[in-house]
Amino acid sequence: MHNLKKESLLILASESPRRKELLAGAGLSFTVIPSLFDESSVPISAPETYVKLLAESKASDVSNKYPEQWIIGADTIVQSDNDILGKPSSEKDAFRMLKQLNGRIHHVVTGYSICCKKRNFNFTEAVTTEVLFKDLTEKEICWYINTKEPFDKAGAYAIQGLASRFVKRINGSYTNVVGLPVCEVIEALERTKIWSRNI
Amino acid sequence: MHNLKKESLLILASESPRRKELLAGAGLSFTVIPSLFDESSVPISAPETYVKLLAESKASDVSNKYPEQWIIGADTIVQSDNDILGKPSSEKDAFRMLKQLNGRIHHVVTGYSICCKKRNFNFTEAVTTEVLFKDLTEKEICWYINTKEPFDKAGAYAIQGLASRFVKRINGSYTNVVGLPVCEVIEALERTKIWSRNI
Repeated sequence: MHNLKKESLLILASESPRRKELLAGAGLSFTVIPSLFDESSVPISAPETYVKLLAESKASDVSNKYPEQWIIGADTIVQSDNDILGKPSSEKDAFRMLKQLNGRIHHVVTGYSICCKKRNFNFTEAVTTEVLFKDLTEKEICWYINTKEPFDKAGAYAIQGLASRFVKRINGSYTNVVGLPVCEVIEALERTKIWSRNI
Repeated sequence: MHNLKKESLLILASESPRRKELLAGAGLSFTVIPSLFDESSVPISAPETYVKLLAESKASDVSNKYPEQWIIGADTIVQSDNDILGKPSSEKDAFRMLKQLNGRIHHVVTGYSICCKKRNFNFTEAVTTEVLFKDLTEKEICWYINTKEPFDKAGAYAIQGLASRFVKRINGSYTNVVGLPVCEVIEALERTKIWSRNI
């Protein structure tokens, strides 16, 4: 059982250290309680529909256990052409993904869901950011794979990590690429009046 | 006198902790030796011309002392309409700047200069990123000023700090807004063949 303080109104239903850093870095107070929702139970569909369904399912799972709290759930995918790139399963898989992203534009889509069961509140949305990678040499790709950074990241890279050197420009929300569109999430929280309790 | 290791080929001529984090986060090895160049000696001109001149002057100042090393100098300004916004001098000044950025697009311009005196090498360029702030309430602006974060930042905000919640989208290089366009700087270093010594 998680040690939930009475005053902790907000729960981040994600074990991603990047999402935790983003929310804490923006000045919010919250508790982390990862969802136990089985992601593999959701069939892959259109990117926005897919991440919204996953975000909502994760938030809802934690909301059932903590009905009085406000829960944030999220899910991020990388879309390149018509492929959805998840976390790479091997070095070969990471190499394939990074070759696919090389020198081109791809899209990062994050779904986020804010819910409170007791108040019968649910708001779920998705944000898309365009990302342009520079031209990578095979030597650079191999160097990056050897750092091990790609292995727990959708699309096999971390924009806030060593791969910052690969990203020429983005168009849209930066924090969305890291894992949570902070501006949009806080605007949604403001509408619930949670904001004033957290600053 | 700075403790410069013999193997340290690369020097960052900036005391900005943000630039240091960006370069280190991208995997580079370097030494920090801030320039003593007097910025106030340069008259304000067109944004790109101005930051390039400052970046080159800072790099050149350190290069004169360490002629065998490769030096990186940089300078960042915030441009809103035709105003160049520097670091705020007071709470009132920070409030004025944040009101000016509120709900609108502004531009962040970073000049960077890479030089090596012994090799008679100098490459100086500027990168511009478009940033859109959400609509801020006066309460939010006052909250942000009270955190003290605005006071050592050009334009009175830090995109990687608490102000991440104010930024709706960017178009261009994210690291450029933080203080150094990492992708472009490393591409320029690659052309000098420093790269292979740093990974």
